[in-house]
Amino acid sequence: MADKTNYDLVIIGGGPAAMTAVVYAARKQVDMLVISDDIGGQTMWSSGVENYLGFPFITGAELVQKFEDHVRTFNVPQEYTRATRLARSGDVFNIDTQDGRQFTSRAVIIATGKSPKMLNVAGEKEFLGRGVTYCATCDGPVFAGQNVAVVGGGNSGLDAVVQMMKICPRVYLIERSQSPRADAIMIQKAKADPNVEILTNTTVKEIVGGNFVEGLVIDSVDGGNLRKLDVSAVFVEIGLSPNTDFLNGIVRLNQNKEIPVDCAARTGIPGLFAAGDVTDVPEKQIIIAAGDGAKAALGAYAYLVRLPVGETWG
Amino acid sequence: MADKTNYDLVIIGGGPAAMTAVVYAARKQVDMLVISDDIGGQTMWSSGVENYLGFPFITGAELVQKFEDHVRTFNVPQEYTRATRLARSGDVFNIDTQDGRQFTSRAVIIATGKSPKMLNVAGEKEFLGRGVTYCATCDGPVFAGQNVAVVGGGNSGLDAVVQMMKICPRVYLIERSQSPRADAIMIQKAKADPNVEILTNTTVKEIVGGNFVEGLVIDSVDGGNLRKLDVSAVFVEIGLSPNTDFLNGIVRLNQNKEIPVDCAARTGIPGLFAAGDVTDVPEKQIIIAAGDGAKAALGAYAYLVRLPVGETWG
Repeated sequence: MADKTNYDLVIIGGGPAAMTAVVYAARKQVDMLVISDDIGGQTMWSSGVENYLGFPFITGAELVQKFEDHVRTFNVPQEYTRATRLARSGDVFNIDTQDGRQFTSRAVIIATGKSPKMLNVAGEKEFLGRGVTYCATCDGPVFAGQNVAVVGGGNSGLDAVVQMMKICPRVYLIERSQSPRADAIMIQKAKADPNVEILTNTTVKEIVGGNFVEGLVIDSVDGGNLRKLDVSAVFVEIGLSPNTDFLNGIVRLNQNKEIPVDCAARTGIPGLFAAGDVTDVPEKQIIIAAGDGAKAALGAYAYLVRLPVGETWG
Repeated sequence: MADKTNYDLVIIGGGPAAMTAVVYAARKQVDMLVISDDIGGQTMWSSGVENYLGFPFITGAELVQKFEDHVRTFNVPQEYTRATRLARSGDVFNIDTQDGRQFTSRAVIIATGKSPKMLNVAGEKEFLGRGVTYCATCDGPVFAGQNVAVVGGGNSGLDAVVQMMKICPRVYLIERSQSPRADAIMIQKAKADPNVEILTNTTVKEIVGGNFVEGLVIDSVDGGNLRKLDVSAVFVEIGLSPNTDFLNGIVRLNQNKEIPVDCAARTGIPGLFAAGDVTDVPEKQIIIAAGDGAKAALGAYAYLVRLPVGETWG
């Protein structure tokens, strides 16, 4: 635990966006603190990452280890807690943490990511990273040749179905309502494919298996139609929640509770930057979060370095 | 050389933006071609990369090898030539190449990068990657503790000076005109540092050394004041030129001849995307180009997958 409580930069978050921001700011010798009770973010849950350029295949956990090894070369202090409140007074930001401390900073990068909405059924937590996944783009190709289920008939669910139907013998789409809510063209494509079975008015009861997922127990919404699907993977695509509750109105969020940013990771509030899945950037990808984390750090550096001479920093 | 000349997607370029786009599009099984006579882009010239998350230190050439190994897992066809003209007729793009061929594509990603403006002095080409560099953010920290010279007094030159003066005993700034043209605050900071020597009305004659750079020969613009500076690195910061000549007016370029893009790598022309240093994204960084390359590929995929059913693709 650091004694110092005043920093030029505080980075809130522990995923790829935050970690890249740390690397960039550290190389600029910015005086900074990281606040996060998590290391790796959603990357940690991925059974296999095949789209982070430079690593043809690596598990999420292994990739996070490489990221962490990289970040550790810089000796940046980290508080292993959560930010519970961010406020601004004058040109200074105040950050409260869950363990009851308070920090001040001239600039802040928010990279707190998203948490997936969970099904909250038996087996879901147990099989996380062993067949249960919240990101088809990340994990889909790992399950080529196997039967899979996608839960959720919105655009992200249908994107998952269209992606998987080309490489899987059987793709089940589970949707609670009477019909999927995705774009018509996507539904049309899914319906035209003989590999796809769409189950509407259907709800998930349980995910079962041994070491890995082996099946999905479903029922009709009205009950009485229990059925077990033999699948190796369950793609839960019922939405994600941005971790923005602590922002406390300091920035105006969009309708999804995400932080709107411009192309340079700026929030519109001088000194306040955001990157990664917590922002309104549409694609949730490790390499995108990392790239935007670099933009945020370079933006924060440019902000700090141009403060008037005499205002001490660093 | 591929016999096929019609593709759903053509990616023009060979650097990190293009390579990440290939990985993302290949994983979506998009029917595509890469056109580039280069592999690795500016990354290839970097003596050491310390800010691509996951690799604490790696040479540019080694990193490019890892990128290439990753891309090669997908068997995507590549034409080793340059695009010389891009045009659009109806919903289809036509691409002419230097070797006299023509390709058509439904979507195009431009990731042709930038070429640095060179000093065109003796020693410059010989010491590329061995002390001569065109990117202080990429290569600066490698030269901590050594004397260095920065050529060019614009903002990128002064950014390099301010970065290097904290870690180098001596930083020379070489500027042709009477005074640097960078922001006043940056010039003020450089002038206030005793490690910095600013040489205006000065021109570079030659870069000298053995295996690595050992010195920079300069003269006054009027001549007659030859002097040799003992430096281990020369940061050439006199600007970069985007490789956009082949675009032939298909998109309106900004005043720097870069392609304006929105935050999702879109050019405003349906089906035409751009990423990396060729765009108006301000920061020239490998991880940023890679992240934006992923955005471009996912954008192109979303464009292609939503074309009406019946229009064949893939």
